[in-house]
Amino acid sequence: MKNPLEITERTKVNRLSNRANYDREVIYQILDEAKICHISFIYEGKPVVIPTSYGRKDHLLYIHGALNSRMLVEMEKGIDISLSVTLIDGLVLARSAFHHSMNYRSVVIFDQARLLSDFEEKKEALRIITNHLVPARWEECREINRGEIEGTKVLTISIEEASAKIRTGGPKDAKPDYQLPIWAGVIPCKMQYGEFVEDSEQHQDAVTPESVKNFYL
Amino acid sequence: MKNPLEITERTKVNRLSNRANYDREVIYQILDEAKICHISFIYEGKPVVIPTSYGRKDHLLYIHGALNSRMLVEMEKGIDISLSVTLIDGLVLARSAFHHSMNYRSVVIFDQARLLSDFEEKKEALRIITNHLVPARWEECREINRGEIEGTKVLTISIEEASAKIRTGGPKDAKPDYQLPIWAGVIPCKMQYGEFVEDSEQHQDAVTPESVKNFYL
Repeated sequence: MKNPLEITERTKVNRLSNRANYDREVIYQILDEAKICHISFIYEGKPVVIPTSYGRKDHLLYIHGALNSRMLVEMEKGIDISLSVTLIDGLVLARSAFHHSMNYRSVVIFDQARLLSDFEEKKEALRIITNHLVPARWEECREINRGEIEGTKVLTISIEEASAKIRTGGPKDAKPDYQLPIWAGVIPCKMQYGEFVEDSEQHQDAVTPESVKNFYL
Repeated sequence: MKNPLEITERTKVNRLSNRANYDREVIYQILDEAKICHISFIYEGKPVVIPTSYGRKDHLLYIHGALNSRMLVEMEKGIDISLSVTLIDGLVLARSAFHHSMNYRSVVIFDQARLLSDFEEKKEALRIITNHLVPARWEECREINRGEIEGTKVLTISIEEASAKIRTGGPKDAKPDYQLPIWAGVIPCKMQYGEFVEDSEQHQDAVTPESVKNFYL
């Protein structure tokens, strides 16, 4: 582990700790591959979890939304949040139901979000979020205007109190079960990006952009 | 909407409420298609969100884990939880960065989980969770034994205070932007299940089971 995060009481993986990973680069890779996160916060004393898109640059995650988004209005108060990102890599079929599992890569982060107020910082965060969806897309878009930036709430979350948990490989059955003629194996999973569908109101001079072409490479 | 859930203060979708759906069957379909959920609960006064597998039968979700799982030990106390399941269906590229979006189907549920103690009820829940991974797999496995059932904690969550949120279709740009020769469209996404990988210690008499063959149909 070249660049590990400090392990805290909350990020210490208790169960199946051999699956734990605190390496910054490993955590970043998972965050960069996934498209959505689930954010948890306390609202009127009760937990709420909401999916949302995001972007990452260095040790910061950015999320955004409407000015009146309930989640963002709560989060800008600096309350505690927890954020998770999960990639499913395989369905693991063992000889026993008990040992069925999944291969996955997940990250859990704890922090308090901070509201961005600086105009240029917000603009840069929106670029990062847009380019997280499809790299280099921002640069092809109609330039964002002041009203759009002012009409969007942007918050940032630090990737500091964070851990990854990763399972790979085949099923692990109890030793006697290997003598049974029951099939065992893994069904690999990954997000598949299908052929793009052009907008029905496409401008006649619009051509397939580099960002979209490169997305499939 | 044939069989709607009652809308509560918490499940009422405030933002983009045209995307809200309270139909029981719609919610069930999303839960049945996804493989993992994210569960949020409060631990020592702070929110925690954790991914986990599950299964559904009728209006009940089942989750399971080790007896000493921190999440389950907390949740069996009957604390409030929030659970979310999200399927990503497309990356939506608009002419403006501002209108970039995703097509998705998500469900959010609020409840308190209940610990199952009845042996047969637990066994049935474990069958449902196993068959959520790959339908009809449970029936092919080595029969589960008493120690495995007693060594697993199973909780159930009601799908009552719940809502779905769904976005479909192409980008929606501001009217003047349709005059710009900027490409717009959707990159469809879905979970792809690749060709299975047999266990390296496969029994010589093991044959590809019906559950796995049917999984790809």
